[in-house]
Amino acid sequence: MTDFNPRDPDYERRVRESFARQSAMVTLGMRLLRVAPGEVEIGLGFREDLAQQHGYLHAGVVAAAVDTACGYAALTLTESGAEVLSVEFKLNLLSPAAGERFVARARVVRAGRNITVCSGDVFALKGSGEEKVVATMLATMMTVRG
Amino acid sequence: MTDFNPRDPDYERRVRESFARQSAMVTLGMRLLRVAPGEVEIGLGFREDLAQQHGYLHAGVVAAAVDTACGYAALTLTESGAEVLSVEFKLNLLSPAAGERFVARARVVRAGRNITVCSGDVFALKGSGEEKVVATMLATMMTVRG
Amino acid sequence: MTDFNPRDPDYERRVRESFARQSAMVTLGMRLLRVAPGEVEIGLGFREDLAQQHGYLHAGVVAAAVDTACGYAALTLTESGAEVLSVEFKLNLLSPAAGERFVARARVVRAGRNITVCSGDVFALKGSGEEKVVATMLATMMTVRG
Amino acid sequence: MTDFNPRDPDYERRVRESFARQSAMVTLGMRLLRVAPGEVEIGLGFREDLAQQHGYLHAGVVAAAVDTACGYAALTLTESGAEVLSVEFKLNLLSPAAGERFVARARVVRAGRNITVCSGDVFALKGSGEEKVVATMLATMMTVRG
Repeated sequence: MTDFNPRDPDYERRVRESFARQSAMVTLGMRLLRVAPGEVEIGLGFREDLAQQHGYLHAGVVAAAVDTACGYAALTLTESGAEVLSVEFKLNLLSPAAGERFVARARVVRAGRNITVCSGDVFALKGSGEEKVVATMLATMMTVRG
Repeated sequence: MTDFNPRDPDYERRVRESFARQSAMVTLGMRLLRVAPGEVEIGLGFREDLAQQHGYLHAGVVAAAVDTACGYAALTLTESGAEVLSVEFKLNLLSPAAGERFVARARVVRAGRNITVCSGDVFALKGSGEEKVVATMLATMMTVRG
Repeated sequence: MTDFNPRDPDYERRVRESFARQSAMVTLGMRLLRVAPGEVEIGLGFREDLAQQHGYLHAGVVAAAVDTACGYAALTLTESGAEVLSVEFKLNLLSPAAGERFVARARVVRAGRNITVCSGDVFALKGSGEEKVVATMLATMMTVRG
Repeated sequence: MTDFNPRDPDYERRVRESFARQSAMVTLGMRLLRVAPGEVEIGLGFREDLAQQHGYLHAGVVAAAVDTACGYAALTLTESGAEVLSVEFKLNLLSPAAGERFVARARVVRAGRNITVCSGDVFALKGSGEEKVVATMLATMMTVRG
């Protein structure tokens, strides 16, 4: 949507170190795929032990992936030393989360001094490389300093 | 908010059987605590392997608990054979999810023929029995038949 | 949900003065009915010139009433000199907004230093005094100082 | 996001006739600017009598414009005779709604048989032709038949 200039050239290291401290990301099998100014992608494979009653990936896991991607998209644009908290998010579940792998792609819609708004989508990937959007999020993040 | 009359007297069995088919609930350590007409509670203990970067319960896990509770609150009021899907939910994160145990309490705000709106809260429980609200959700569920 | 202690004993005057500066409230026929710590009510009559295509009150007018009530509910709890901005809100439309009069009732769910979360409901009132909920909101407000 | 094939070639007439029946649109000075498959734009001028306390366009008016645009974006893709209702929407307010004119642009994110998810943005326009996004919406619409 916009070109973002990160205030901290070392933003990627900061995001990767924070992500590595999230034990839930390891437990849920999520990996940080891409970190760019205002944009983050998180990938995960389907796991039968994270399914809902119809065998699709649980909406809470979908939410975890894209909320985390939104938070780190916001973090790429903060100064060094700042942290980002999720204030709230809304998730529309568009299709059953059926696939072998999933990718959550988030981007900053508007970065303010205290509040950053992000949007994100979760795509199901089939073996053929086909992508299908399964969920979309609009999230509000807060920058916390000091 | 209202007294609800379940259309299916066997609603609790239906909810418990569906919950038992959700492998993610087992993996995330969630249990169905209470099932009443229009109301469901889900409990879970804190787990270090489901934490975010500051050591609190991950927002995605919080979302999974309360979204699931909202969905089953809606299911208590449907006729036998119907299913409930999450259309969307919004979650406000009010405080860090710090606690030994958590409980997600959901209730139906309005049950329509196709769309049911639910609200839910997640509370952190301390050893002393003290409860603190950590998140609140407003969710839209759809009833699917046949 | 909680007893709130206003930091500024003069909160009601502050709310009423701010409301009086909103020309949209006059144009849309809205009145401030009740101002209490953490709670605000706004009333409006049905107007045919504010209807949607089926003759019910337009959802944007419903949103205006309850968003405004949420913002002022937050403002009752701030110190003197602070202002409140809407960061975002979510509105579920539960029933057609059919009635002679409407009242939007908002309350603070959690008041933080910078972020206050409010919920609100809009009720349609019939001549008989009967109330019916037509919409429910979950909103995020930000306190701005200086 | 996608190319949409309208099921009813006469979709534009249907949208324009429904819009013309919304008295609130006339009262608020809104006009239907563009109707395409899955996309609708609504324009409005700034009006001092629709301002909030700082003199910017009231958030409820912003919501009315973009919720209406989202609903009609969904309606472009339904069959003849169907109607669209707003189930819920979430609006993030990104910047003060300061401008001479505003345009709300909505598009369908995913069209299902019963549920259509739309997103929309509201832009403030300055005399110079410059556009600035002031709000973004993610909305859920329901198709009603018969």
